[in-house]
Amino acid sequence: MKKPTILISNDDGIHAPGILALTEVAREFGEVWVVAPDSPQSGMGHAITVETSLRVEKEHLFEDVVGYACSGTPADCVKLATGVLMKKQPDLILSGINHGSNSSVSTIYSGTLSAAREGAIQGIAAIGFSLTTFSHSADLTACKAVVRKMIQLALSAPLPAGHYLNVNIPAIPLADIKGFRVTRQAMGRWIEEFDERKDPFGRPYYWLKGRFELLDKGTDTDEHALAEGYVSVTPLEFDMTDHHQLAHLNTWDWGF
Amino acid sequence: MKKPTILISNDDGIHAPGILALTEVAREFGEVWVVAPDSPQSGMGHAITVETSLRVEKEHLFEDVVGYACSGTPADCVKLATGVLMKKQPDLILSGINHGSNSSVSTIYSGTLSAAREGAIQGIAAIGFSLTTFSHSADLTACKAVVRKMIQLALSAPLPAGHYLNVNIPAIPLADIKGFRVTRQAMGRWIEEFDERKDPFGRPYYWLKGRFELLDKGTDTDEHALAEGYVSVTPLEFDMTDHHQLAHLNTWDWGF
Repeated sequence: MKKPTILISNDDGIHAPGILALTEVAREFGEVWVVAPDSPQSGMGHAITVETSLRVEKEHLFEDVVGYACSGTPADCVKLATGVLMKKQPDLILSGINHGSNSSVSTIYSGTLSAAREGAIQGIAAIGFSLTTFSHSADLTACKAVVRKMIQLALSAPLPAGHYLNVNIPAIPLADIKGFRVTRQAMGRWIEEFDERKDPFGRPYYWLKGRFELLDKGTDTDEHALAEGYVSVTPLEFDMTDHHQLAHLNTWDWGF
Repeated sequence: MKKPTILISNDDGIHAPGILALTEVAREFGEVWVVAPDSPQSGMGHAITVETSLRVEKEHLFEDVVGYACSGTPADCVKLATGVLMKKQPDLILSGINHGSNSSVSTIYSGTLSAAREGAIQGIAAIGFSLTTFSHSADLTACKAVVRKMIQLALSAPLPAGHYLNVNIPAIPLADIKGFRVTRQAMGRWIEEFDERKDPFGRPYYWLKGRFELLDKGTDTDEHALAEGYVSVTPLEFDMTDHHQLAHLNTWDWGF
């Protein structure tokens, strides 16, 4: 069987430990390209760069890996990789491993998942990986085992083109991980807690802090799986239509 | 009945004609707050500002409207408005009127919709408005009539808290608009067409262009409604779970 081509991106930037661990495992499976932001892009959601132009610089990461650092967002990286740099479609797109979880409503704010989603929009199978700790010195041994298993599954099951998965990994030793659970996105939100400060000229500025509030008691959610020591695997889509509301809205009086 | 409080934002910036038209109509219904980006934020998706702090400046827009220009993204504006500036929850959040359509997959890239989505996440009813032309000198007469009707419906039907609507308005005279259609997000994508240039030092840089490709022949989509001369109203959600894939994924071999 022809070796697959795998494109890798992330939102913590091309030098984050998480993307290096992801790349190391992906190299076991095929030809690997890394096109990732040249600086951290956390919280970028599905932003794309339309008001300025983009730059790319070659990066040497591993002997057998083509690497590029890009001045744009994670979604830009995937667009630039598939549209300009690779001159072919990858068989699989991987994003991460993010330093920090992307479960529940963080799916919406996540740059990591925007790279995977951009792949799905382009009709390419994609997976986003996140570890539930922000520490850049976290032990990534368990993550690597999870990534290896996920790539095997995505290539052999296979994961259909245009579909993407959100994989969250609990920050616990491999021996303590109980296995995988297929989950749905938990209902939750961030409660804003802005930190107001004054600059040296007396003018206010604000730091966004926020505190997560889980609004979902379900046992089939990503949050619940993580709390129980499972790797959470959530299938995501990019059709944002609330299909349950269509019938209700049709009862409204639309006369102009 | 108590007059409603309406919060307005957008992604074209606080001085765009679209947000002024939206504000003008909203004033007919209640107390209006405008908290919008101080510069254009198109294509920002659901980005939030986590690496830097935010600034706000008071802006005088209309006699009876409290206005703030914010250095952040549309989602930041809503967070800052509800979390700091307003000291109360608005009854309704309106975003736009965007100069350019936000139909089909543009839902994902749209800053306009991220402001509405942020409202929905916070449990507030919200509507995003977009006009299918980029021209800042477009006639907004039809838009204003559409906005008036949508606010009436959202307040009286009412639009449940936590739900948001994506309203796209065809750029044609009011007399030619055939009415409203409740639609779903059409399947489509942007085909990347990067414009590669060289800077004065011979280094390449890239402009993202892109060309929209509609992959959906349905007659119940936003794209179809617009093409037929209808205002498209699509209910959106922020649960990204692909519920149809859950059963399929459970058939995978998850043994570790």
